[in-house]
Amino acid sequence: MSKLVIVGTIAFDAIETPFGKTDKILGGAATFIGLAASHFKINAAAVSVVGGDFPQEYLNLLKDRNIDIEGVDIVKEGKTFFWSGKYHNDMNTRDTLITELNTLADFKPVVPENYRDAEVVMLGNLHPIIQSSVLDQMKEKPKLVVLDTMNFWMDSALNDLHKVIERIDVITINDEEARQLTGEYSLVVAARKIHSMGPKYVVIKKGEHGALLFHNSHMFYAPALPLEEVFDPTGAGDTFAGGFAGYLAKTEDYSFENMKNAVIYGSTLASFCVEKFGTERMLNLKDDEVLKRMQEFKQLTQFNIELL
Amino acid sequence: MSKLVIVGTIAFDAIETPFGKTDKILGGAATFIGLAASHFKINAAAVSVVGGDFPQEYLNLLKDRNIDIEGVDIVKEGKTFFWSGKYHNDMNTRDTLITELNTLADFKPVVPENYRDAEVVMLGNLHPIIQSSVLDQMKEKPKLVVLDTMNFWMDSALNDLHKVIERIDVITINDEEARQLTGEYSLVVAARKIHSMGPKYVVIKKGEHGALLFHNSHMFYAPALPLEEVFDPTGAGDTFAGGFAGYLAKTEDYSFENMKNAVIYGSTLASFCVEKFGTERMLNLKDDEVLKRMQEFKQLTQFNIELL
Repeated sequence: MSKLVIVGTIAFDAIETPFGKTDKILGGAATFIGLAASHFKINAAAVSVVGGDFPQEYLNLLKDRNIDIEGVDIVKEGKTFFWSGKYHNDMNTRDTLITELNTLADFKPVVPENYRDAEVVMLGNLHPIIQSSVLDQMKEKPKLVVLDTMNFWMDSALNDLHKVIERIDVITINDEEARQLTGEYSLVVAARKIHSMGPKYVVIKKGEHGALLFHNSHMFYAPALPLEEVFDPTGAGDTFAGGFAGYLAKTEDYSFENMKNAVIYGSTLASFCVEKFGTERMLNLKDDEVLKRMQEFKQLTQFNIELL
Repeated sequence: MSKLVIVGTIAFDAIETPFGKTDKILGGAATFIGLAASHFKINAAAVSVVGGDFPQEYLNLLKDRNIDIEGVDIVKEGKTFFWSGKYHNDMNTRDTLITELNTLADFKPVVPENYRDAEVVMLGNLHPIIQSSVLDQMKEKPKLVVLDTMNFWMDSALNDLHKVIERIDVITINDEEARQLTGEYSLVVAARKIHSMGPKYVVIKKGEHGALLFHNSHMFYAPALPLEEVFDPTGAGDTFAGGFAGYLAKTEDYSFENMKNAVIYGSTLASFCVEKFGTERMLNLKDDEVLKRMQEFKQLTQFNIELL
């Protein structure tokens, strides 16, 4: 199996949804990506930064799941990145209430020596210059670089974003962001434009409507599992990305056909993430629950038609 | 194969989209349902009403496709139902500009004698009392009754709507309407509530996001084929319903497993409908084009995962 480098925030989140609210709880892109990827029992390393206020027990949650945390810089005199948000009733839109960058403001990621030859790199949502600096540290071009980003960087650092997008293999982006990045409403046309920016594979996340995978003229559409209740969407996108990258690192098969499976694994893991606040559900997720839900996913999507 | 009764409007539509606008063209639920169902070369009859202004050549378009039009009442002194609408740039929302009920205001559907023993009845969107009156005319309970409806009847005739919903097997409804009918945001919970109103099968149409089929605890999710361009969404829902009901009438297998295939056929036919204004694409649709797109649908959705 391949080694996986995970770059992203490790954070405190405070979340309010129609179902309730939390105090500061464990969050951050690298956290969700790591927890999802750890399901595959691969060798993975998190590259991130936290402050002196960050509990060792939270870091141990990653370490216990075989995520190397040598690359997590602990800035003793600093504070951990903090995000607070409130979801609207439809759970698809949210307001950011507080963003305190804290130690993230000066984050200079350092990939541990032992992971500079990793085959797979998952760049969680961060400033594109930080994402690029991780790729600069790799000894050779990784077999697969997956990048997540958001509209904030399109507004504030578009040139830098284009520079890192040129260097990656897969971009994961939501539908509105794909439209913003390309100026195209049709996701088919938007994906084609993004291909021309560099990535050979484009994953467009549509939340409760599932995810699309594009590779030239090939398309794959994985629906999201319809749920009785979405309790807290925080981290669902990162969990999807972690499942996607983790599965590919595990199987070492970076073909379009196998990426379909990676999308299904990502969607499956994300369907658990939203069932509880923050990381709670992912921290208590058992292998047999994942297997059972994968089978539900098959039931949900597979058909055996006789063409008339 | 089974006989299919199709009840719904036959109309003039005038449509404006970001791509252009039409004069009065052929439209109406029964028209789109009939054109879609005719793909399966079954025995079908349209039950509808038009005015003396309706061109015989339009009726012949149905007749030529083996749709019996004995049940289409031609009110010589009346005018045909006319609808005009304008789509917004996102193609998901539209404004109704004109609704002239004309002969539809006094429509009393009469099912041709030869079709009163039909196994499958497709009730297109109409006043629920009119939909009920069709069921009253059937000699025995049909094997399958499919009903389409819309929010308008929830606002204006909810009791009558509940009475007809009690009598049917499958309801097709869009996501917003499912939420309005049940007061539930989660489509899983909404479908369960609709089950308790009568229908054993619930199809929730989500436009560009596909369609969900529910049957007790079973779910199936057919995505919509991602398109470069949606030219005109008019009739897509009816085309879906016509493909769904037509396929089931053809195969005479009303099981959940076979309804999955019916959903896929419906989605495939609807993906053509939106490519041109009104019925234009459906009138020129060849069998081999449908087969090819069915195969694209398989590519789009099918995966072969090894569960880890």
